[in-house]
Amino acid sequence: MAARQLKLGAFMRPVSIHTGAWRYPGATRDANFNLQALKRYAQALEKAKFDAFFMADHLAVLNMPIDALKRSHTVTSFEPFTLLSALSQATEHIGLIATASTTFDEPFHVARRFASLDHLSEGRAGWNVVTTSNPDAALNFGREEHVDHARRYARAREFFDVVTGLWDSWADDAFVRDAEQGIYFDPARLHTLAHKGEHFAVRGPLNIARPVQGWPVIVQAGASEPGRQLAAETAEAVFTSVPDLAAGQAFYADVKGRMDRIGRNREHLKILPGALVVVGETHEQAREIRARLDALVHDASAIASLSVMLGHDVSTFDLDGPLPDIPESNASKSGRQRAVDLARAENLTVRQLAHRMGGYGGLAFVGTVTTIADEMQEWLEAHGSDGFNVMFPWLPGGLDAFVQGVVPELQRRGIFRREYEGRTLRENLGLPRPENRFFRR
Amino acid sequence: MAARQLKLGAFMRPVSIHTGAWRYPGATRDANFNLQALKRYAQALEKAKFDAFFMADHLAVLNMPIDALKRSHTVTSFEPFTLLSALSQATEHIGLIATASTTFDEPFHVARRFASLDHLSEGRAGWNVVTTSNPDAALNFGREEHVDHARRYARAREFFDVVTGLWDSWADDAFVRDAEQGIYFDPARLHTLAHKGEHFAVRGPLNIARPVQGWPVIVQAGASEPGRQLAAETAEAVFTSVPDLAAGQAFYADVKGRMDRIGRNREHLKILPGALVVVGETHEQAREIRARLDALVHDASAIASLSVMLGHDVSTFDLDGPLPDIPESNASKSGRQRAVDLARAENLTVRQLAHRMGGYGGLAFVGTVTTIADEMQEWLEAHGSDGFNVMFPWLPGGLDAFVQGVVPELQRRGIFRREYEGRTLRENLGLPRPENRFFRR
Repeated sequence: MAARQLKLGAFMRPVSIHTGAWRYPGATRDANFNLQALKRYAQALEKAKFDAFFMADHLAVLNMPIDALKRSHTVTSFEPFTLLSALSQATEHIGLIATASTTFDEPFHVARRFASLDHLSEGRAGWNVVTTSNPDAALNFGREEHVDHARRYARAREFFDVVTGLWDSWADDAFVRDAEQGIYFDPARLHTLAHKGEHFAVRGPLNIARPVQGWPVIVQAGASEPGRQLAAETAEAVFTSVPDLAAGQAFYADVKGRMDRIGRNREHLKILPGALVVVGETHEQAREIRARLDALVHDASAIASLSVMLGHDVSTFDLDGPLPDIPESNASKSGRQRAVDLARAENLTVRQLAHRMGGYGGLAFVGTVTTIADEMQEWLEAHGSDGFNVMFPWLPGGLDAFVQGVVPELQRRGIFRREYEGRTLRENLGLPRPENRFFRR
Repeated sequence: MAARQLKLGAFMRPVSIHTGAWRYPGATRDANFNLQALKRYAQALEKAKFDAFFMADHLAVLNMPIDALKRSHTVTSFEPFTLLSALSQATEHIGLIATASTTFDEPFHVARRFASLDHLSEGRAGWNVVTTSNPDAALNFGREEHVDHARRYARAREFFDVVTGLWDSWADDAFVRDAEQGIYFDPARLHTLAHKGEHFAVRGPLNIARPVQGWPVIVQAGASEPGRQLAAETAEAVFTSVPDLAAGQAFYADVKGRMDRIGRNREHLKILPGALVVVGETHEQAREIRARLDALVHDASAIASLSVMLGHDVSTFDLDGPLPDIPESNASKSGRQRAVDLARAENLTVRQLAHRMGGYGGLAFVGTVTTIADEMQEWLEAHGSDGFNVMFPWLPGGLDAFVQGVVPELQRRGIFRREYEGRTLRENLGLPRPENRFFRR
């Protein structure tokens, strides 16, 4: 039997996920609105047989002090649906994952846009289902108070049911287009959802044919208790933020265990931790690249980023003392916990924590092609993950180093594809095509 | 001085606006989800120097009796933003106009998507601002009752102010990207809208740079009293539905007069009636094409379409008697009035009216290349319009006949461009680039 295979997504901000990256020599500083650069990245990832191009997203400019904000390249870029639709025409195989919020959007719109992207890309769309933890987003949608965490998840679950129900409005074979008889579709193959729930009332049917994949691939990133349960019940890929292999294994065992308990096949959900990958000719060179990037993060940015992550203004703390206990907030629980855990584990001052988190605070593989492939293989074999959402330290250089160095090494080891297995994102990820809940073929 | 020039948009449903078209011999029946066909149409229109590809839209499957609905090709197709983003990559010059509803969407989302399409297409986006007259749409967005007409327009006006304010969040020169100093943008060139109005509270700023065109081109189609006033105040192109030249002249004079009274330059709004154009080798052949299309509309469809247009179930009327007086409804006032006027003017029975309106009930130019060019020229010179939103009777044949026959004739007469004048939709339409309301250069 063939070895288990890694699945690789590229988690993309146009300039990089690392907040210092735009200042790095050779970086594409204007990539936020440089479609040619983004096409080139997508094509390079596709040539390397990546599963998906996963576009990061926010629904607000972060509410940082202006002295920090003005140093950030992350606040503005293309909107994901329009961008991915354009990229669908410059690529043929790579999956296209967009984020849509269950808190600040409507199920009818979301179902429709993903179905359309799936048709345009011939089956390559994925929906990253987020409840939107950024409290500033609420202020752009007429709400003074952010929706609380529990209610966001209850709404998310119902939102998911409505969207998938709308995708199933039409049987796959509904459109007969019989010109002779004048029958465009078979009315027996159309279902009107007529959903009335606690959060939504949506009649349907959706005004678009069933997606090529049945449903676009369902992606989630929540790590809280309700987030994990929602993932185990509904997700097909999970973007996790775990700091190390032990945490990865614990998350993996927990979510796959939840799947066992509800009778879902464990293979039908791929757990893909986010990982910054910094490739050097030597281990030392890789560390130098990382250090140089971190040094390019401004002090003000670092403090402000940590404040956003914790949901508290940390500039009021003693910056050179330990992180004090901070009260509950409405910020993402997983991001908050990660910061707190890191500070405790490494005994960091608030300022040290801010600098670490301010550039990029999560899991990172920093080394040579060989050590990075070793680590990825170890995670795979130790059931720490089913693959990764790779983040590049700067672009294009960091991306090129990965696809030219690490990917061939993973292929040589037989743990990453040399050719796409299928035609759709779902097929490449090894996921079944959902049956239509209202129609059997 | 050069002659006034026609502006030409193509108002597109993938199969055709005519409900019988999908049954026409040679029609592309599956065009709703056939991207290759739509790319070919967009490229043919661009080669013919059309100003814009204008994608029709609905937010619901029409609530017709199923025996009528099953005969309709118009209920399902690509969602406009995703489609136009994809088409932006297959074209270089033609404008891309999408519809977005001020009743069932959020200003932040709408501002963002249009800004993104404008960046992706390098300045070719247009926003068709609609208040959504289809009462079935409300049921897909959690509302039992459709929002009434007056309130829809009040909300539309505020929605427009918020969207344009969000587009002006960033000065055109805000992004300095000074790597040396670590300044990505100049905070003095960022404006936070902080809008609080009757219908919306939106803080901003928008998380995308100012559109290439400043603002995407503003398009409207309302013909009611508040619709005309909103157009005179805010629109840059108006898609009108007028039955004949006299009505076109009256509308033209009315809206341009409203512009005079508020001090707007009349040239800064292009009035473009929708017109079905059926080209034949002879006048008789053109009429035969039209008659054949109309004959392909099923009786049930015709009755149901008229019911939707009037906001009343006309199957309860005496179908072979005259159209009775019908009470006010919440349906589009302009469409309703057009049907009533046509029935009165031509003394049609309900059934006759239904057949006429059921295929396509509006202005049509049916004739040879010469007679169609004559009519278009007459409208232009008699101030009935500034051009047209052309609709093709079937595709690809009806489109090809227009671009291969009528366009060269208009060019020969010097009333249509041989080359695009500018780089953006706005430049081609001869519209000024809006100043940023918060920043002067």
